Amino acid sequence: MLAAAVRLFNEQGYDATSMFDIAESLGITKSSVYHHISGKEQLLQMAMDRALDGLFEAAAEVRNLDVPALDRLERLIRRSVIVLADRFEFVTVLLRVRGNTEVEQHALARRREFDAVVTELVKQAQAEGGVRPDVDPATAARLLLGMVNSLTEWYKPRPGGAGSIADAVTAIAFEGLRI
Amino acid sequence: MLAAAVRLFNEQGYDATSMFDIAESLGITKSSVYHHISGKEQLLQMAMDRALDGLFEAAAEVRNLDVPALDRLERLIRRSVIVLADRFEFVTVLLRVRGNTEVEQHALARRREFDAVVTELVKQAQAEGGVRPDVDPATAARLLLGMVNSLTEWYKPRPGGAGSIADAVTAIAFEGLRI
Repeated sequence: MLAAAVRLFNEQGYDATSMFDIAESLGITKSSVYHHISGKEQLLQMAMDRALDGLFEAAAEVRNLDVPALDRLERLIRRSVIVLADRFEFVTVLLRVRGNTEVEQHALARRREFDAVVTELVKQAQAEGGVRPDVDPATAARLLLGMVNSLTEWYKPRPGGAGSIADAVTAIAFEGLRI
Repeated sequence: MLAAAVRLFNEQGYDATSMFDIAESLGITKSSVYHHISGKEQLLQMAMDRALDGLFEAAAEVRNLDVPALDRLERLIRRSVIVLADRFEFVTVLLRVRGNTEVEQHALARRREFDAVVTELVKQAQAEGGVRPDVDPATAARLLLGMVNSLTEWYKPRPGGAGSIADAVTAIAFEGLRI
């Protein structure tokens, strides 16, 4: 049901999607849908949590690695691409919300928290001499995540496809395009 | 009037904005608005053209520069940041349309045309040995523009601010974060 709802949210927009649309796309009645969930806002929250949980699991994974901050940062950016590819429809929903409700505000706050994790890694990597010192850490974090998140605009998820995209993202972000 | 309409489109969404809202925000009557323009779709088209014309002017400017393709590419990415900062509200409108009408489809086609200009520059720069050969040119173009376009999510335009952001974008994209 979550997958069906998220597909509709992304195709026609969250506001334009009714509980009737969701029920119809599943071939069941609206009251059957309400038997399982309280309303479409619950589906939105579940979808956004699916995306955010993936990102925070990735952050937790790299946190305790015994490697330089630069490597943890690179690993986290790579994992963010994989999370985006694996949970494509959920991340797409997440990136489109503008904070119109409390549920959306909460998701935006968690996104900012994840931005702060990336910012902190950039800062540490600068302090360790691994990252160029002339870029503001918060700006670098936003540009890195902006590059990753832009995948929702054009990437078509396919099995095994995320690896080569993650390679391209990290090659550009960490080594640069110039030879 | 265009500025007022675009502000409303970005604040409350294009679909949710009526001609009455636009008239009200200007303190004039709806019929006065219709005296100048045919409807809100014309305002949308004007806004998107303002953004796209800026990008294509930048592309034309770099096209005939007598420098390596890598330098033209870097110049174009830098100029794209400046266009985005200078025409922030117009670019924001452009990046949110999903192709629901003919006017939107036309704008998306022009965006793809601009993507193709960037892809071609990456290809040329690879052929000249200026850009790493292991990244697909179309992917590189999308990631570069994805990084630039992500500014609409967080950048607050201020006089003189675009230069340092453009520095950060080109430093990351062309030199990479790693020292």
